[in-house]
Amino acid sequence: MEIRPIIDHHKTFTLEANDGGARVGTLHTAHGDVPTPAFMPVATQGSVKTLDSTDIDAVGTNILLGNTYHLYLRPGVDLVEEFGGLHGFMVWDGPILTDSGGFQGFSLEHLRRIDEDGILFKSHLDGSMHKFTPEATIQYQERLGADIIMPLDMCVSADAERDVVVEAVERTNRWAVRCKEAHTREGQHLFGIVQGGLYEDLRQRSAEFIMSLGFPGYAVGGLSVGEGKERMYAMTGVTTELLPSDAPRYLMGVGSPEDLVESVARGIDMFDCVLPTRIARNGALFSKQGRINIVAASHKRRDEPLEEGCDCYTCQTYSAAYVHHLFRAKELLGFRLATIHNLRFILRLMEEMRQAILEGRFKQYRAEFHDNFTPPDELVRHVQRQKWLKSQGRPGV
Amino acid sequence: MEIRPIIDHHKTFTLEANDGGARVGTLHTAHGDVPTPAFMPVATQGSVKTLDSTDIDAVGTNILLGNTYHLYLRPGVDLVEEFGGLHGFMVWDGPILTDSGGFQGFSLEHLRRIDEDGILFKSHLDGSMHKFTPEATIQYQERLGADIIMPLDMCVSADAERDVVVEAVERTNRWAVRCKEAHTREGQHLFGIVQGGLYEDLRQRSAEFIMSLGFPGYAVGGLSVGEGKERMYAMTGVTTELLPSDAPRYLMGVGSPEDLVESVARGIDMFDCVLPTRIARNGALFSKQGRINIVAASHKRRDEPLEEGCDCYTCQTYSAAYVHHLFRAKELLGFRLATIHNLRFILRLMEEMRQAILEGRFKQYRAEFHDNFTPPDELVRHVQRQKWLKSQGRPGV
Repeated sequence: MEIRPIIDHHKTFTLEANDGGARVGTLHTAHGDVPTPAFMPVATQGSVKTLDSTDIDAVGTNILLGNTYHLYLRPGVDLVEEFGGLHGFMVWDGPILTDSGGFQGFSLEHLRRIDEDGILFKSHLDGSMHKFTPEATIQYQERLGADIIMPLDMCVSADAERDVVVEAVERTNRWAVRCKEAHTREGQHLFGIVQGGLYEDLRQRSAEFIMSLGFPGYAVGGLSVGEGKERMYAMTGVTTELLPSDAPRYLMGVGSPEDLVESVARGIDMFDCVLPTRIARNGALFSKQGRINIVAASHKRRDEPLEEGCDCYTCQTYSAAYVHHLFRAKELLGFRLATIHNLRFILRLMEEMRQAILEGRFKQYRAEFHDNFTPPDELVRHVQRQKWLKSQGRPGV
Repeated sequence: MEIRPIIDHHKTFTLEANDGGARVGTLHTAHGDVPTPAFMPVATQGSVKTLDSTDIDAVGTNILLGNTYHLYLRPGVDLVEEFGGLHGFMVWDGPILTDSGGFQGFSLEHLRRIDEDGILFKSHLDGSMHKFTPEATIQYQERLGADIIMPLDMCVSADAERDVVVEAVERTNRWAVRCKEAHTREGQHLFGIVQGGLYEDLRQRSAEFIMSLGFPGYAVGGLSVGEGKERMYAMTGVTTELLPSDAPRYLMGVGSPEDLVESVARGIDMFDCVLPTRIARNGALFSKQGRINIVAASHKRRDEPLEEGCDCYTCQTYSAAYVHHLFRAKELLGFRLATIHNLRFILRLMEEMRQAILEGRFKQYRAEFHDNFTPPDELVRHVQRQKWLKSQGRPGV
């Protein structure tokens, strides 16, 4: 076994500006450059739910994310590879990142067993068994052909005891070694993942080991798993301070507007999250003031866009009243129009933050954002999430 | 009571060519001209299911249809009027036709009572009661603001006894008088509807009376209600021969490819039908050979468009395998891509027929169409329809 030499970070990422802790840069990939901070819409099964390739581009997507576990199960890695990888299969010629299945080892806890060799999943589709070893997930991701891939990691819940977190960090480290060794595809970046739960010293131990292996980018894993926003922000700050400034930093699974702003403030460059698309299908639409519930009767006769000044197709074309009607009448078009609006909102937020950082006024931007934006409180979010999990036939977290 | 003078048909329709019984013309409306033969995609609740305004235009729609009964119940005639009528509300600047609710008096048989005054509906949404008199439906349609509107009519099933059909014809005639008298909106065409079931002499009696009132266009109602294709074609031919050649002829509720070709052959100029959009959402896609079931395993690895040579967005962009995957994975994008394909197929069929008629080769076109196209047999269609009705919680017809 031989660990390959540390990759030159400069080939993957160019850091262009700092403003306090916030950063602007460019991520270089085989399918083009990505301005950062960047948000990745999630195409779990090879589709950003309800959107076609033209829509994905029109909302301003610069990079998107696919889920290896889901694609492996359906339509299968072989098939996707046959169609030119995920780029060819879903007809998206821009950059793509795939995850490793590690997060599903956490979120599908009732359907998996983990040992040193990897994660054994029981398919949520047909109950069949599938082993995701570090080597296997790298091979799957090489064949899916994303521009950036992730190693198998072990994620634990926010209330995990210290010894459980220690074990997760150590196993993630050992798996990272195996993943790095298994990775052979040229022009595809394999990032490292830092775990460590809510323990500063474990975050440090994890970061030091992962950095010692050398990766062209580093992800912060194991956050946004029920720890609450303040603790999430704190651990994000602790972790980014440990990471090299010349490599991109990716906070996994985070994507509410307030979390994006706070994480960019703490030096994060990349994000992914299903929140904007999932809540869109539930009629929850972003505005500078917070979330709008488009199903509410107050929108029935609203003869103006969902959000005044929004440049998305939905707001440029339709009244809030029409979108309200589509949701009330259970017309499928409503889901797509809402998804377009929410993704455009998030991607414009990223563009605005980038501009503010470049102009040295991020602090002011951040303050103004919070003055205007009222997030739903944590209790409401928790109840909504439990409802959603139940609707999916899954136990609550 | 005074019946207004016969309207000059030439203001509504220009007949441009004949080829055998088949016709080419142009329908003139306040929102532009419509080349005929024309197929109207159906926007039941102000949305052609899954499509936005750009899509509706991109598939080649020249005129679409909205359902007064559905729009009346939700979002309501007041609201639609407030937003500039159906054109403004759904953001479609092309021609629109609305129906009268007469067909729902047939299809929602378990939810209505009919007397001389009109149709009393029990809302399928909340059980509330709503009276559609001839005068009311004209007023609703004037306020919805379509370019072409329809009078309240009484439609009976294919197996109705003669005396029931006689009564339906006579009531439809009396209602037509009331509708014509009630109609006042300038620049909006009110068509007449010919009923008469499967009785030639009743079709004749109905046509003569309706023509005596004078309308700028005539619809053939009460077909495609379970009579079987041969009898439908025969009655279509019988009825078009009774109608004036200088007015457009609209066969209501018909829209399978084979029925469109056969009805154009018998002199029909306009059609509407939910079939192409409804079966699309079920994974049934049109091709020159017949219907494709995209969910079938045979499409899993098909690295070519749904239909070779199709110019729709779906076929120009995606592989059949990707659309198959979307249906298998229950991704909503699949419904939209399938709808785009089916509507484009139907609208291209209309364009091709128009061209063939203009070039005097419609007979050959029709023969070639049937050589290639195998319709599902009637038994299969019947079983599918019963399944669909059941899925809607409605009794079979």
